[in-house]
Amino acid sequence: MSGTYKVIELVGTSPVSFAEAVKSAVAEATKTVRHMDWFEVVNERGSIEEGKVTAFQVTLKIGFKIER
Amino acid sequence: MSGTYKVIELVGTSPVSFAEAVKSAVAEATKTVRHMDWFEVVNERGSIEEGKVTAFQVTLKIGFKIER
Amino acid sequence: MSGTYKVIELVGTSPVSFAEAVKSAVAEATKTVRHMDWFEVVNERGSIEEGKVTAFQVTLKIGFKIER
Amino acid sequence: MSGTYKVIELVGTSPVSFAEAVKSAVAEATKTVRHMDWFEVVNERGSIEEGKVTAFQVTLKIGFKIER
Amino acid sequence: MSGTYKVIELVGTSPVSFAEAVKSAVAEATKTVRHMDWFEVVNERGSIEEGKVTAFQVTLKIGFKIER
Amino acid sequence: MSGTYKVIELVGTSPVSFAEAVKSAVAEATKTVRHMDWFEVVNERGSIEEGKVTAFQVTLKIGFKIER
Amino acid sequence: MSGTYKVIELVGTSPVSFAEAVKSAVAEATKTVRHMDWFEVVNERGSIEEGKVTAFQVTLKIGFKIER
Amino acid sequence: MSGTYKVIELVGTSPVSFAEAVKSAVAEATKTVRHMDWFEVVNERGSIEEGKVTAFQVTLKIGFKIER
Amino acid sequence: MSGTYKVIELVGTSPVSFAEAVKSAVAEATKTVRHMDWFEVVNERGSIEEGKVTAFQVTLKIGFKIER
Amino acid sequence: MSGTYKVIELVGTSPVSFAEAVKSAVAEATKTVRHMDWFEVVNERGSIEEGKVTAFQVTLKIGFKIER
Amino acid sequence: MSGTYKVIELVGTSPVSFAEAVKSAVAEATKTVRHMDWFEVVNERGSIEEGKVTAFQVTLKIGFKIER
Amino acid sequence: MSGTYKVIELVGTSPVSFAEAVKSAVAEATKTVRHMDWFEVVNERGSIEEGKVTAFQVTLKIGFKIER
Repeated sequence: MSGTYKVIELVGTSPVSFAEAVKSAVAEATKTVRHMDWFEVVNERGSIEEGKVTAFQVTLKIGFKIER
Repeated sequence: MSGTYKVIELVGTSPVSFAEAVKSAVAEATKTVRHMDWFEVVNERGSIEEGKVTAFQVTLKIGFKIER
Repeated sequence: MSGTYKVIELVGTSPVSFAEAVKSAVAEATKTVRHMDWFEVVNERGSIEEGKVTAFQVTLKIGFKIER
Repeated sequence: MSGTYKVIELVGTSPVSFAEAVKSAVAEATKTVRHMDWFEVVNERGSIEEGKVTAFQVTLKIGFKIER
Repeated sequence: MSGTYKVIELVGTSPVSFAEAVKSAVAEATKTVRHMDWFEVVNERGSIEEGKVTAFQVTLKIGFKIER
Repeated sequence: MSGTYKVIELVGTSPVSFAEAVKSAVAEATKTVRHMDWFEVVNERGSIEEGKVTAFQVTLKIGFKIER
Repeated sequence: MSGTYKVIELVGTSPVSFAEAVKSAVAEATKTVRHMDWFEVVNERGSIEEGKVTAFQVTLKIGFKIER
Repeated sequence: MSGTYKVIELVGTSPVSFAEAVKSAVAEATKTVRHMDWFEVVNERGSIEEGKVTAFQVTLKIGFKIER
Repeated sequence: MSGTYKVIELVGTSPVSFAEAVKSAVAEATKTVRHMDWFEVVNERGSIEEGKVTAFQVTLKIGFKIER
Repeated sequence: MSGTYKVIELVGTSPVSFAEAVKSAVAEATKTVRHMDWFEVVNERGSIEEGKVTAFQVTLKIGFKIER
Repeated sequence: MSGTYKVIELVGTSPVSFAEAVKSAVAEATKTVRHMDWFEVVNERGSIEEGKVTAFQVTLKIGFKIER
Repeated sequence: MSGTYKVIELVGTSPVSFAEAVKSAVAEATKTVRHMDWFEVVNERGSIEEGKVTAFQVTLKIGFKIER
């Protein structure tokens, strides 16, 4: 591992699972960020409506190489 | 967001996944608590028996509005 | 609960989910450690390649009884 | 300090300040809990709408003596 | 481990030791809570009066199974 | 809650109070970020000059929806 | 920033707000410490009497330059 | 609780138990500090020699009122 | 302090107190590890059966010198 | 200290030391960010290849003033 | 990243710097562990004798692949 | 290890490295404190001016024996 990396923080959501919420955030980030390398889960939360879990929310950090 | 919320702590269990353990705890809480709004994962643990994961256990906080 | 337990730290990986990564690490540990009793998730990370999550990595502690 | 105390977790909200959010939660708790003794701030968050802070939210623990 | 557990937070006190403060809180909880299963120490504090430790205070979480 | 959110970290300052420092950072962010949804306090510090508090500084995370 | 700084820990109290509790502790420290430079909030607690918040207590670290 | 308190950090030791290590540190502090009010355990460690625990070491914070 | 040390994690149990649980784990470790130097408490938990504390469990790290 | 600051997170790397890894990240940031004011180390990690440390990696937060 | 990794905890020491203490622990580990992949700093401490720093001590976790 | 120790908190600075910042704080402490025994790093920060690291700042705790 060499060079410099930037770390950004996102919250991904999914009605299904934490893993899907992670994938959803990464898929969104892909539209503007290149060279993503790793993610780390910071926090797992979710929404409850009428007694049911309606969203899994994962706060994650994503690291990507700054390329010039 | 206005009013006052109470936060309780539960441990849900599931033989399948962390997401199912969360759903299971929320389903149980639904029997006595109304107006649940969000949950937050505090801790993820599990049981192992004879070399196999037999339970996923998620400690979670659940927030609900105090309604009067 | 009586006796003394040892706690080891492993990182399990899976292309599918955090739960599978946990199971994978426990399955590997089973080859050398007996009497595993519980696990606790320490950290959840993962790898991203070409904009896609390619691995879920779970750092977990595993406790097992020291039997003599 | 003697006896046993119970600790509950509440989230108070206020459009004005963190201090007011604390007072609001304590005032609400007063309706059902007696002998409250201390509080501790766990977390300070808030809501933003149309670029303005619309609510200060304080998660706090409140300790009160179990009296019999 | 299966089913759902609730976790409550108590502060036990004792003039003698941290272990006694734990026992004291559990004994008190026993009057209203059934099926207690485990406790975890959150914090250890105490009071000092005229240069002497007059109380050991242990904040602990207690987990018990929700039985229906 | 659905979609993906980005979280940025700012430090707001105010000569008056922590709440004002939060508002000041949010007001500044408003110039470049749209759809802000929540903030969370990370850290509260301040400056002292000639024995007087001259600035309240609040490090806060701000979450906003990525809209396309 | 050069030289060496000492960091002390104080608890300030105020019946009004956390900001006032900080100012109160700094004002007290001013009587014996010179060259104070910054403070950092460690903990926010408070007292409740007869269902009302009677004191805001802020534990804070204060840094000051060691001058010779 | 009113006024300003100072918090100092000590490490007490005892060959017997954590509680005795706390008492020992408080007894020592009594020689130079007046008006001690509370302590909080920060850390519990110890020394092992020839396979035996020879000292329990408790790092604790002690708060006392600044009286003028 | 020179050389390299290894740190292992154990859970000791005792029906009596946290201090005894520590001693019990160290006594067990003594059978396979030499040159133990220090321990640090990571976590204090316990079991409750029929409303009584039946075991104090201390998770501790033990450091020992790697001798060659 | 007045105005609003933004905080970004970077990972700097160096084959030599943690201090060099910090300098390397700051030097890289200099290309796109002006008015950098301070940094804070979040995490220190590194890579090992064939039994040798080949990279020191420092995750750091960098604060800079938002100037308009 | 695939497969399972084990994580061990070591304390390296050096009279010179934290970086040298890390290298020293890795060099020692090399004698018994193969396929080391990364390290993470857990804690940095040191010894002082007669007013001088005589040892830098770094507690670090080292991860290596379990190869079969 | 026996007796009672006091722990103070200092911030050392150096234009060169974290290790030098530690040494600098210890050298300063030596002027007023005797019997220093160990230090522990609490935090590593630094100043940036015109895009260059101009100071490494290490917050450290120093423990010394109270001798009478």
